Amino acid sequence: MRAEIITIGDELLIGQVVDTNSAWMAQRLNENGIELFQITSVHDDRAHIIAALEEAFGRADIVLTTGGLGPTKDDITKQVLCEYFGTHLVEDTRVRAHIHDLYKERPEVLNRLTATQWLVPECAEILENRVGSAPLMVFHKGDKILASMPGVPYEMKIAMDEQILPYIENYELKITNYESGHILHRTLQVTGIPESSLAIILEDYENSKPGYLHLAYLPKDGIIRLRLSSYGEAAEAEMNEWFGRLKTLVADYLIAETDEPLEVIAGRRLQERGATVATAESCTGGKLAAMFNKHAGSSAFYWGSVVSYDNSVKEHLLGVPEEMIKTHGVVSEEVVRVMAESVRKLIGTDYAIATSGIAGPSGGTAEKPVGTVWIAWATPEGTTAECFHLGKLREQITDRACMKALIGLIRLLRE
Amino acid sequence: MRAEIITIGDELLIGQVVDTNSAWMAQRLNENGIELFQITSVHDDRAHIIAALEEAFGRADIVLTTGGLGPTKDDITKQVLCEYFGTHLVEDTRVRAHIHDLYKERPEVLNRLTATQWLVPECAEILENRVGSAPLMVFHKGDKILASMPGVPYEMKIAMDEQILPYIENYELKITNYESGHILHRTLQVTGIPESSLAIILEDYENSKPGYLHLAYLPKDGIIRLRLSSYGEAAEAEMNEWFGRLKTLVADYLIAETDEPLEVIAGRRLQERGATVATAESCTGGKLAAMFNKHAGSSAFYWGSVVSYDNSVKEHLLGVPEEMIKTHGVVSEEVVRVMAESVRKLIGTDYAIATSGIAGPSGGTAEKPVGTVWIAWATPEGTTAECFHLGKLREQITDRACMKALIGLIRLLRE
Repeated sequence: MRAEIITIGDELLIGQVVDTNSAWMAQRLNENGIELFQITSVHDDRAHIIAALEEAFGRADIVLTTGGLGPTKDDITKQVLCEYFGTHLVEDTRVRAHIHDLYKERPEVLNRLTATQWLVPECAEILENRVGSAPLMVFHKGDKILASMPGVPYEMKIAMDEQILPYIENYELKITNYESGHILHRTLQVTGIPESSLAIILEDYENSKPGYLHLAYLPKDGIIRLRLSSYGEAAEAEMNEWFGRLKTLVADYLIAETDEPLEVIAGRRLQERGATVATAESCTGGKLAAMFNKHAGSSAFYWGSVVSYDNSVKEHLLGVPEEMIKTHGVVSEEVVRVMAESVRKLIGTDYAIATSGIAGPSGGTAEKPVGTVWIAWATPEGTTAECFHLGKLREQITDRACMKALIGLIRLLRE
Repeated sequence: MRAEIITIGDELLIGQVVDTNSAWMAQRLNENGIELFQITSVHDDRAHIIAALEEAFGRADIVLTTGGLGPTKDDITKQVLCEYFGTHLVEDTRVRAHIHDLYKERPEVLNRLTATQWLVPECAEILENRVGSAPLMVFHKGDKILASMPGVPYEMKIAMDEQILPYIENYELKITNYESGHILHRTLQVTGIPESSLAIILEDYENSKPGYLHLAYLPKDGIIRLRLSSYGEAAEAEMNEWFGRLKTLVADYLIAETDEPLEVIAGRRLQERGATVATAESCTGGKLAAMFNKHAGSSAFYWGSVVSYDNSVKEHLLGVPEEMIKTHGVVSEEVVRVMAESVRKLIGTDYAIATSGIAGPSGGTAEKPVGTVWIAWATPEGTTAECFHLGKLREQITDRACMKALIGLIRLLRE
């Protein structure tokens, strides 16, 4: 089956909100064997929404929409869907009871605008939105279906996992009498080689692999993700075989055999050896800590960080001698080594990573231009440090510094 | 003038990459008086790209594409644009010289695949991509134009600011003989009121405002952003007048009069009084530090953080008595107050914020369910603390905790 996503909201088209929903939904659809053909973002505008619905139904079997379901005047999706499917709003007593239950401790929310949330299109099937007041609606158009969800990411995620995806699975079985094809993606991550040189290494591989296997290159922050995809045609055994060959060909540059974030891979390796890590962050400013802690369970191996944005923190908390900063500068091998060793002792972990660099836009010199970053790794066996030049833009520099820090840690944990 | 964006890449449609480019481009277009009508994400597929181009040209004057310009086989945008515009590839000696210059210190990149990057469509105008090897291409179709940029965010941003937007501005002047209309957006941020109650307060306002002013509600993480927009019709004076009325009506809930991130607003207030802040983060795990430090210039007021993910860090570095943790638990008013006061002294700042909570999915109890977060603010005048219940999902809880921490700081700095 083929799906499309329509995200509805002026905020997307003036750049006030980044659409993170679509990528999340795309992953889930692929995991469920459903191909996502197109993502379209449209305004909160009647004619625009209707045109996008009509076009999407022309290409796909399943249309998923997010957004425009709030109780305020600017949200018009429910009304437009009524018009498109030639129906009208009726009161739904189940939704009404659910909303009363949802706000039983906040009765002030049960005002007359919230009351519009239990008016639903007569022809729609209503699924339960466990965590919000906007109804989840499913419409039928011949053999095709449309599911409308709220745009709030947390509500959308729960709606997809608990209601929409199971609904689609049942629906597919009913309509087609067989299950979805398998969409397979396998990704590995390499580093330390230009994309074009990698492609030359893989030229024979690309020419000899079966046509139903597709190879994609995704370079970002000093990592190239190599993804092998197949849409329904290849058996898992063939995918495994070709993925294995790919791995062998890029072995010298391989940093990860999955598409997981590097901090997850580093975390697993730490846990496997019962080891822990801490960080001392200057130029990365807490980003490395936040990357580790984003994932549940990180407290088992990630113990803490000293974010030493001001030099006084480096001196007083991390024991970097004032003299050392004067002589070598804060962005130096000497300083970053002391930072890593200090935080390792201070927090009492097996490993520690320290970063110090010039993230810009100001602060660069001829000798140490913006983008210069020193990183040190303190381990039970000693400390290593390396200098990098990571570009010109602040965000790029700090993102890449985090990746370099994690690549170094993963390599240490491999040895 | 009206624009559309087409983002090209399988990675977007299988959810391997979040499209952050479109929101950034949308902002820049709006700032330049160009309305963005639609964003469409399509596969690296010839027929799909051509269909999307044809549809976009049917609706807009300017079509911007990103992605598919790398030197590897999976990138086909340049070839498809050649076909669409009925042209062929020719060598561009300027691009060739630029690429040689770009990689003069990395000669290994100058291989035969990189050489394909200086082949460009004959009918295209080529603009300089200062930071990468993919050519920036502008095509004409009657009075309409298409600009093709790389999908790598850093390259796209520099391309837009230095080349594409100035090109569009000149082009508009040439074609229409007048400058773009003004698109005006003004946003304020409120907190502590349900969206529906806010809409009831603003009902008369919404009914009496001129039709060319549009009001939108954007709720996220406990904040509602209220955006007033006008597309070309309203003068700045009228916008200011109606925005002023809006501000008065929501004064009790107002947290910011602009759309800037709360950490930027807090930072400015700190700088205005020459004050500094530090953080001690347990459940937010470095996210608050990273939010502050994302912005250039933050080192003037943000001095550092102790991320105390493991309890031993709370005890040894932040001086939380072991006994206190045993008696009250780490997620308690007592502990979070000590954390804030300790980090304020340790780092030597005027203000400090501490967070401790249960981000889940595990760790919740009947008394302190997942989502329970204590936050403390230590100031020169004393310490306050507050308990929040911030939802069920890890990401939601930590995002909302950061917002609550910043709201508290902004309020303290207002008094």
